[in-house]
Amino acid sequence: MRRIFVFDAYGTLFDVHGAVRRHEAAVGPDAAKLSDIWRTKQLEYAFVRSLSGRYRDFEALTAEALDTAFAMVPSADRSLREALLDAYRTLAPYPDARPLLEHLKAGGHSLAILSNGSPGMLADAVGAAGFEPLFDCVLSVDTIHRYKPDPAVYEMVTKHFGVGRPEISFQSSNRWDIAGASRFGFRTNWINRSGAPDEYPDLKPDAVLTSLADLMPGK
Amino acid sequence: MRRIFVFDAYGTLFDVHGAVRRHEAAVGPDAAKLSDIWRTKQLEYAFVRSLSGRYRDFEALTAEALDTAFAMVPSADRSLREALLDAYRTLAPYPDARPLLEHLKAGGHSLAILSNGSPGMLADAVGAAGFEPLFDCVLSVDTIHRYKPDPAVYEMVTKHFGVGRPEISFQSSNRWDIAGASRFGFRTNWINRSGAPDEYPDLKPDAVLTSLADLMPGK
Repeated sequence: MRRIFVFDAYGTLFDVHGAVRRHEAAVGPDAAKLSDIWRTKQLEYAFVRSLSGRYRDFEALTAEALDTAFAMVPSADRSLREALLDAYRTLAPYPDARPLLEHLKAGGHSLAILSNGSPGMLADAVGAAGFEPLFDCVLSVDTIHRYKPDPAVYEMVTKHFGVGRPEISFQSSNRWDIAGASRFGFRTNWINRSGAPDEYPDLKPDAVLTSLADLMPGK
Repeated sequence: MRRIFVFDAYGTLFDVHGAVRRHEAAVGPDAAKLSDIWRTKQLEYAFVRSLSGRYRDFEALTAEALDTAFAMVPSADRSLREALLDAYRTLAPYPDARPLLEHLKAGGHSLAILSNGSPGMLADAVGAAGFEPLFDCVLSVDTIHRYKPDPAVYEMVTKHFGVGRPEISFQSSNRWDIAGASRFGFRTNWINRSGAPDEYPDLKPDAVLTSLADLMPGK
């Protein structure tokens, strides 16, 4: 039976900490801190802008979050700004992503990305990973100017495919994204590679997996 | 002329890091990290729940955020959980708060709190600080089940006082709160005690102050 598998992009297919890691030696001893603040602020900006009704695309927010991270981590060299933003546009996929995507595609299933990323960023990341032939569509929140976990974002998927909510299998490593998708009514798999603590006790995933490989047959 | 001054509570009137600081020796070397994660997760949960439409009150989110912080900071002793939550209910006000509030009250102005906090938490904090006689009202988002910076929260103020948006002077130390309040149309003062980097470039405060004392006459 043909099924629809939807994937979050940043943190799920692509390792968001890969950008700083690519320039780790140049960034220096506070590289991990810089990367953590960059990610935390990027998410804060998306949430706050969706709540306050003043959209700005994820590419702009990513740059603003990096500027804030530099301001909070004085040891990091600001001249790396452009190199880090370039690296963010071509983040490496996690090693478990391609085998699963290729397997599902070969099985005739529909594959989609649903991401807070802007269309340009997503096209670059998907292109750099060679993932274009694998996805039926890449849905960006930029179409509706709201960010996950606003229900209107998850609704982009059911509208696109013309199916009911429980027919969608949704994969994300971001626990807050799983919370929103479960609340919306998708079947959800939380890909918890890092052993992160569980959150949102009333908005559970249908399953908790340690890797996308757990979705392969025989697992 | 009688004016209306509205204050955010957590981070603006009350020092949110005061809870961990009160038990700093018992928490150990990662006390600051525990406090930072506690605060960051508390805010994330509020944003995500407002966006996803699954409200849970700030007291519950504060406890859940502390549990996540403990999970991420293994060196901190989990038996301090109740002591830290108790301390959060009676956070000390910043030293610059009382003199300004008393001055404005003596001048015949209206004073209000607008907070993501639950009514019980706010009553405890305001009571412990001896602030009850100073405020005309304490407005909690719990009435509408949405969190700042949702515009519906700021609208609670204009509805309560029956005035236009630019007639409200809004004070917050949280830059994202200032972004939401400025977007809504309040006159905003960002109380940036810590020299935090500016954020939300298109949603500026009307003024940036380093202390609530900057609102005293003669300053």
